[in-house]
Amino acid sequence: MNLILIDPNDYQTSGAIRITDPRRLRHLHEVHRASIGDCLSVGIQGGNMGTAILTRLDDQAAHFELQALEQAPPAPLPVHLVLALPRPRMLARTLEHVTALGVKQLTLLNTQRVEKSYWQSPELREEKIRQHLILGLEQARDTQLPEITLAKGFRPFVEDRLPELLAQRNGLVAHPGMPQACPRGVSESTLLLVGPEGGFIPWEVEQLLQAGCAGIHMGPRILRVETAVTALLARLF
Amino acid sequence: MNLILIDPNDYQTSGAIRITDPRRLRHLHEVHRASIGDCLSVGIQGGNMGTAILTRLDDQAAHFELQALEQAPPAPLPVHLVLALPRPRMLARTLEHVTALGVKQLTLLNTQRVEKSYWQSPELREEKIRQHLILGLEQARDTQLPEITLAKGFRPFVEDRLPELLAQRNGLVAHPGMPQACPRGVSESTLLLVGPEGGFIPWEVEQLLQAGCAGIHMGPRILRVETAVTALLARLF
Repeated sequence: MNLILIDPNDYQTSGAIRITDPRRLRHLHEVHRASIGDCLSVGIQGGNMGTAILTRLDDQAAHFELQALEQAPPAPLPVHLVLALPRPRMLARTLEHVTALGVKQLTLLNTQRVEKSYWQSPELREEKIRQHLILGLEQARDTQLPEITLAKGFRPFVEDRLPELLAQRNGLVAHPGMPQACPRGVSESTLLLVGPEGGFIPWEVEQLLQAGCAGIHMGPRILRVETAVTALLARLF
Repeated sequence: MNLILIDPNDYQTSGAIRITDPRRLRHLHEVHRASIGDCLSVGIQGGNMGTAILTRLDDQAAHFELQALEQAPPAPLPVHLVLALPRPRMLARTLEHVTALGVKQLTLLNTQRVEKSYWQSPELREEKIRQHLILGLEQARDTQLPEITLAKGFRPFVEDRLPELLAQRNGLVAHPGMPQACPRGVSESTLLLVGPEGGFIPWEVEQLLQAGCAGIHMGPRILRVETAVTALLARLF
């Protein structure tokens, strides 16, 4: 928790903050070893970042007084990431990685090689997803929550949503064996599509290329989804 | 397991391979759903890659006949990675990530903010480390095991080993707030140093800069060690 992210529920009156959830309280006690008068990094969810003074701390609550909030959150990555739904544990970690890296639009997509059971996972509940996004923001010192969209059909996604997404973005399909190496240091708006463990099937790649995406690769090594996504984002932007 | 990595112990007589360990047998049965006559990707540990035909499979053993072994393993990254020893679970995952990405020299370093207990973790046993390296190679389709060195003292590392490591390499210290952005698309031999959660302490950064390393950053976001290492390697090389 490199940043205490202030939720609208944490506001008491103007300028006073009260945190009562066990996770953040434990972190303040055990990791920060915070004491009265400490000046800690805070950010308003969806807003600016700055500092706050700890005015009271016990087992039930931490009270803060907000100081200057003049720092804007770091710039988002210019990317809409479309990721074939990973298995639940990898989804959890990947949500934290991509949030920390600055992704603000993420679509989780069904493809042939996504196991159907993954769509029933408790990790996909709104509250669980939100927990991982918050952890990613607290890690990276950011305040802007990503938007997550579920696309449970590949064909409807390609036919109904992809044209509009590509209208203002460069589309890139990351897939082993594609002809072009992943570009570096891109600043244009990008739609990045990443397949599941085992990859997109050839028909899916074909559909995405026909829709106007370019195929890119990361070299001969086959990477796990969470490694691949981090590596692609770090190389691209 | 995108590659069946053949250990010297797996050799029967010239050209015949017998695998008996439960992990790989289970994978052949449950993930590959392999059957007699299947042609699978194999690699000789430390050697070439190619294919082998499955000639017998039961609950105790899988027998293969090697075919052509004409493909060289993918090129290693031109990097010696020096990583402050992460906490055990992150170490395990990071070993797999960096092996999959092609790191062949890794030094695990003690620094001020490495908890002493990490050096007693069972994850540091040779056999445990080796398991994670093998998983990384099987994932990425590679055959060359990384060399792992433990450096349990920061000062002896800086005084006794660093000058020699820097004699033939560009040294880069990744640390938030350093003046230079992480370079892209580097092909020179590089020594990359990455701190622990919480970072190097200022004195440590100073020592590394004085030894001739350049300080680099990955932007304003604070990344977890496993995310940072993957992102650094993907951006640098």
